[in-house]
Amino acid sequence: MKPISYTNLFEIRVRFADVDPMGVAYYAHYLRWFEIGRTEFLRQLGIPYKEVEKSGVSYPVTEVKVKYSAPVVYDELIKIRTWLGFIKKASLKMEYEIVNADTDEFHAEGYTIHAAVEGGGKIVRISDRLLSLLAE
Amino acid sequence: MKPISYTNLFEIRVRFADVDPMGVAYYAHYLRWFEIGRTEFLRQLGIPYKEVEKSGVSYPVTEVKVKYSAPVVYDELIKIRTWLGFIKKASLKMEYEIVNADTDEFHAEGYTIHAAVEGGGKIVRISDRLLSLLAE
Amino acid sequence: MKPISYTNLFEIRVRFADVDPMGVAYYAHYLRWFEIGRTEFLRQLGIPYKEVEKSGVSYPVTEVKVKYSAPVVYDELIKIRTWLGFIKKASLKMEYEIVNADTDEFHAEGYTIHAAVEGGGKIVRISDRLLSLLAE
Amino acid sequence: MKPISYTNLFEIRVRFADVDPMGVAYYAHYLRWFEIGRTEFLRQLGIPYKEVEKSGVSYPVTEVKVKYSAPVVYDELIKIRTWLGFIKKASLKMEYEIVNADTDEFHAEGYTIHAAVEGGGKIVRISDRLLSLLAE
Repeated sequence: MKPISYTNLFEIRVRFADVDPMGVAYYAHYLRWFEIGRTEFLRQLGIPYKEVEKSGVSYPVTEVKVKYSAPVVYDELIKIRTWLGFIKKASLKMEYEIVNADTDEFHAEGYTIHAAVEGGGKIVRISDRLLSLLAE
Repeated sequence: MKPISYTNLFEIRVRFADVDPMGVAYYAHYLRWFEIGRTEFLRQLGIPYKEVEKSGVSYPVTEVKVKYSAPVVYDELIKIRTWLGFIKKASLKMEYEIVNADTDEFHAEGYTIHAAVEGGGKIVRISDRLLSLLAE
Repeated sequence: MKPISYTNLFEIRVRFADVDPMGVAYYAHYLRWFEIGRTEFLRQLGIPYKEVEKSGVSYPVTEVKVKYSAPVVYDELIKIRTWLGFIKKASLKMEYEIVNADTDEFHAEGYTIHAAVEGGGKIVRISDRLLSLLAE
Repeated sequence: MKPISYTNLFEIRVRFADVDPMGVAYYAHYLRWFEIGRTEFLRQLGIPYKEVEKSGVSYPVTEVKVKYSAPVVYDELIKIRTWLGFIKKASLKMEYEIVNADTDEFHAEGYTIHAAVEGGGKIVRISDRLLSLLAE
């Protein structure tokens, strides 16, 4: 199910802080990893999210889904795979996979959908710059 | 879309720790609220999750979905509504809504699906006690 | 070591999300509890922190210390005791104790020191209103 | 105030999840960074904490202190400096500094004190292997 388009890979280690009493990563931390994935995806494209926000438009998550297959354990080095699912006039979808960084063992997959929103909360069109960069 | 069956209500206040630079609750915190919701749902049924686990069977999340409608702000008192979506032989679904505790303004909805798993990670049948309590 | 002055008491339950693989609350969560303690301390005095910030002055933490005595376990109901340590022209100290809500078993104690800071980051005097309310 | 002894350096980026409504890293996240610092310090010495724990002795934090000098902002790349403060028969102290990874701008410093504890919670002597490795 690997995407044809551009995929960002980012490695991160699972910390004590992330792990629950069952010895595996708490299920909410995957959303933090997704955030890291899409931030690094944008950075690699040359558009740090910090700059995106300076344009006055932010991209809050309107929907998230995660399917957990195999638990991630303490001190494991994981790899976040991130790619663009779709991009429309006022929304975009990012897709993610969490795998072991060494063995590529599959742990989880998911997506986030984002709306383009102005400061006041009004939904707007995605900026042309972002559109053209992501559409490539 | 309110359930006919039993619904647990639990109020909690949004803290500085939960809020991101946009002044709204970070999207991963909703999963923490869902955890609180289903824990209190079980407690009100008379089966604290702590005891469920002592039986040797745990119920890890295999899937989660959240749809975010309106942002939750700092110091807001929210209400978590939790009910049982379905229960099968080896899995169950919990459903959630996040609303403002005073005005019932709708913020988000979502669900978690859980598998019944033994210590070793083997999928097992949901215990009869839990089944009968939840099936009521 | 209980204070003579006004003390706020606030109860909160320890969640799965807060607990590490050793089955006890992760050490950083105590700082979240301290935040909750001082926020509720201010609210009970009639000055929600939300309003304090609207005045243009915020009170970031410049120093924190925690001494951990006995671990806090999953699903435990704890009580946060919060009181004012000292208040000076441009800084104040809050003190905290974490105990079991039912048995008063002692878990941890600590403090935070806060500076009064304007939007731009300049250290300023604590507002007269806050001073007079806290000095009582 | 740099140590004469061995110092571990580890870089990490500040995420949206770490930042509060004031646009700066929430004060509890520094404790997570300290955890990362001491874990990487041990790994570089050839003793991953995962293995330390397998020996049946763990090293919970009994005391933590942080002094915050200058705020850490969103997307900043920080460097965690970690070194051994002292080691005694049943306790040890780790020291930390948080600085900007590019400019070395100083952000915060702190320490953690750890006790050697057996499974049951009994305080024990630090293992000879750890002692000899850290004493070098």
